[in-house]
Amino acid sequence: MLKKTLVSGMRPTGKLHIGHYMGVLRNWVVLQNSNNYNCFFFIADWHSLTTKYSETANLKSNIIEITKDFLASGLNPEKSSIYLQSAIPEIAEIFLLLGMLTPNNWAERDPTLKDLVKGAKNSGINELTYGMLGYPILQTADILTFKGEVVPVGKDQEAHLEMSREIARRFNFIFNTNFFPEPKPLFTDTASLKGVDNNKMSKSFNNDIKISATEEETINQTKKMITDPLRMKRSDAGSTKRCQVAFPYYEIFANTEIINKVKQECETAQRGCVDCKIELGKIINAYFKEIREKRNDFTDKEVLEILEEGNMKAQIQAKECLFKVKEIMKLN
Amino acid sequence: MLKKTLVSGMRPTGKLHIGHYMGVLRNWVVLQNSNNYNCFFFIADWHSLTTKYSETANLKSNIIEITKDFLASGLNPEKSSIYLQSAIPEIAEIFLLLGMLTPNNWAERDPTLKDLVKGAKNSGINELTYGMLGYPILQTADILTFKGEVVPVGKDQEAHLEMSREIARRFNFIFNTNFFPEPKPLFTDTASLKGVDNNKMSKSFNNDIKISATEEETINQTKKMITDPLRMKRSDAGSTKRCQVAFPYYEIFANTEIINKVKQECETAQRGCVDCKIELGKIINAYFKEIREKRNDFTDKEVLEILEEGNMKAQIQAKECLFKVKEIMKLN
Repeated sequence: MLKKTLVSGMRPTGKLHIGHYMGVLRNWVVLQNSNNYNCFFFIADWHSLTTKYSETANLKSNIIEITKDFLASGLNPEKSSIYLQSAIPEIAEIFLLLGMLTPNNWAERDPTLKDLVKGAKNSGINELTYGMLGYPILQTADILTFKGEVVPVGKDQEAHLEMSREIARRFNFIFNTNFFPEPKPLFTDTASLKGVDNNKMSKSFNNDIKISATEEETINQTKKMITDPLRMKRSDAGSTKRCQVAFPYYEIFANTEIINKVKQECETAQRGCVDCKIELGKIINAYFKEIREKRNDFTDKEVLEILEEGNMKAQIQAKECLFKVKEIMKLN
Repeated sequence: MLKKTLVSGMRPTGKLHIGHYMGVLRNWVVLQNSNNYNCFFFIADWHSLTTKYSETANLKSNIIEITKDFLASGLNPEKSSIYLQSAIPEIAEIFLLLGMLTPNNWAERDPTLKDLVKGAKNSGINELTYGMLGYPILQTADILTFKGEVVPVGKDQEAHLEMSREIARRFNFIFNTNFFPEPKPLFTDTASLKGVDNNKMSKSFNNDIKISATEEETINQTKKMITDPLRMKRSDAGSTKRCQVAFPYYEIFANTEIINKVKQECETAQRGCVDCKIELGKIINAYFKEIREKRNDFTDKEVLEILEEGNMKAQIQAKECLFKVKEIMKLN
């Protein structure tokens, strides 16, 4: 069976948190190790400019940190292409060419555009930029440069991928070819983790637990977790149903035996929330022990070398694609 | 005195006509030979995709023909950089980066956008594309990639150049630098030639005279020129004021002595329009004799080699600019 090509990327926002791991990275590693896909995983530094073009001071260190998170989580440069988007200038050229034939209203009708503009406001950018509007077209270039057939996405990204399919179809139609595949979404069940304060987990809310956190930092964060808001005193019986953050984490990270024990002890007031959250911290620490040890073993230099090699390998394929695209468009 | 950098380009629409020569090329040659400028003249093949992305079958031969027109007209690869836009992928990358920080409404308010959309309709493209909207941003990348300070433009291009200045200023402001110059327009008096039918001269109206036309083809076209619409018979006195196309051409291509003679003979019915237009054809042929001979001397292969060398030279500077831009944006 021919392997399908799978492409996915993440913005280098800084050290990733365990929400990224449970929601994205763990899934990528499973897909990589399934040996069903020819995988391309990239760091989307150009995309981070769409809403944060003026906040680039930490970009380089963010790229190193995210690459460490990728590698520690189990992405393997022997099995997958791991590369930096901006190191593949062919993507910029394919973006330019695809933009020429993409109706502007396809970009304008993107349902996530409003969220993008809102997100940009957090960085002091108060207006839609041309690059922001072109975000789904650049994403299409990311995918089609490697002839991506499968893209693991969340439901919120479905509209973008639909646009990628339309652009691929349009290119194929205009130039009477079947060169580009129409990339299909791959929906997988991934665990969604809330922040310790029951909001969306995010670095900017300081409610996250980093993949790279120390054991102490992890426990300090789990201690802040919101539990059952109606349980006022230690001697009150709690409700794991009402427990907003801590118990749902148990359900993700602990085995059935522990989950049942916590439930029983909580609801009979045999277990207090503080101890319960410290125990949870320890369980999370055990879960990430190996990943964290592996992560600490990488030096910045090693990581940059691995990335450099990944860039070179990915660029070979990108060049080949661009050459063919230009040939099809009669631009050579 | 330090030479200023001058950048200008033309779309490869096919063999150029003498309107292009009188309005643009002749001026470029004067600017080049003034030795006041460090000149970059390019063939804007990406721009031709903004409105004609599906009409690329003749692009390659169009590029060869326009390069011949450039060289025959006096552009000199020893003095100027002559290159193909799409051969400089760094421009695509700078376009992408500039697009990230350009407010979309700057592009939307471009007063020529409507004309672009209208022009595209002639090629069967009925909607604004993302690339078409980004046309003035790509033009800005064309200029700023070579740190262009001066751009010879017609009045109709003034708004685009104003946007280029705004983008340069914005980049410099955001990244606290003075790296990009704010390119200034260079307005020069150029002769504007109408088509033989008194409409805008254009290949698509078949009312043009090609730089590369033979003497016979030239005279066949001048014979079609509209003269004095009120002069019905050869024996009627004509009016050079009413003469719509032929006499204005005399005023551009002939010397004062001939202009006066034509005027006197026309207005006393000593000269008929047919003979007058044949004589004009001969004057135009004399005017372009050397250029046409020079043009015929170039083989396609030579032209492609000259272009290839120009591309390589231009790319060295483009790479340097991109490197610095990425450094300033902290993307390296």
